[in-house]
Amino acid sequence: MEAQTSTKPTAEKELFIKMVISNWELQNIRVSKLIAKLSDEQMATPTAPGRNTGIWILGHLIAVNDGMISLLGLGERLFPELEAGFTGEANKPGVATPPLAELKKQWDTLNAKLTEYFSALPAEEWFTRHNSISPEDFAKEPHRNKLNILINRTNHQSYHLGQLIYLDKK
Amino acid sequence: MEAQTSTKPTAEKELFIKMVISNWELQNIRVSKLIAKLSDEQMATPTAPGRNTGIWILGHLIAVNDGMISLLGLGERLFPELEAGFTGEANKPGVATPPLAELKKQWDTLNAKLTEYFSALPAEEWFTRHNSISPEDFAKEPHRNKLNILINRTNHQSYHLGQLIYLDKK
Repeated sequence: MEAQTSTKPTAEKELFIKMVISNWELQNIRVSKLIAKLSDEQMATPTAPGRNTGIWILGHLIAVNDGMISLLGLGERLFPELEAGFTGEANKPGVATPPLAELKKQWDTLNAKLTEYFSALPAEEWFTRHNSISPEDFAKEPHRNKLNILINRTNHQSYHLGQLIYLDKK
Repeated sequence: MEAQTSTKPTAEKELFIKMVISNWELQNIRVSKLIAKLSDEQMATPTAPGRNTGIWILGHLIAVNDGMISLLGLGERLFPELEAGFTGEANKPGVATPPLAELKKQWDTLNAKLTEYFSALPAEEWFTRHNSISPEDFAKEPHRNKLNILINRTNHQSYHLGQLIYLDKK
């Protein structure tokens, strides 16, 4: 009986983790396919008049998702040099943008590393607090856990995918 | 012991459900705030040259989210008249667009109804199959359940929010 009580919750947690991770993977595939399809010239274009370019958005997605590594207590950012220029809302004047080819490699490297970290994280750990919420607040709002961060960052990525798609021919 | 085994999984399921629903609610708040802020003229403008207008995107979000009602076996669509014109990818020529004021009311009515349906759905039901997956496929992929649909539709909404934001002054 004890064995059943301790395996059942983990199997449920694992199902839920799979739901969230598979949605994240789906959004990754969509971004990866799109940036592979777009030309360098298209990626350098603003997604709408006066708005961020494809290159900036890609750097932004890398920087924000890279931030999950420390936020979830998994390790250190892979590309700390992107943090200053790409974690805000828009292009900052004077911020050096890495070449697109480099960003594309960083995107792939990051997703491989996140996949590795996520696969290794025990199911129960996903339901503990992340590093941006205090223990007091987490006690009151236990749904604001590490897995919730991944749900949130996946939505953030979808938001920007809706903008990136505007670089594609109609 | 029996009581504990049966309450524990439901409490976990309830936590997962809360995580997903709170992210959906957050995206709803963001869309609602934005459409309240934008003028009728801004909403009638293409979100980028040659792309969908704010009005079309709002109709689309209503139609797609309304589709969850039947997909999750909760009842019938509230606004079936929107399905033909607004569940595809773009404006279809000759499709009548309801007035913006009417769409805004429908958006609020829909979210209130979905909240009501979601609150009433027992926790275990969220982890059963939805109406677009066969029992055979669901047996192989149990993560493709009703709650997963809500995760997916929330990402879809975020995608279009990233486009709607382009109607806002910079």
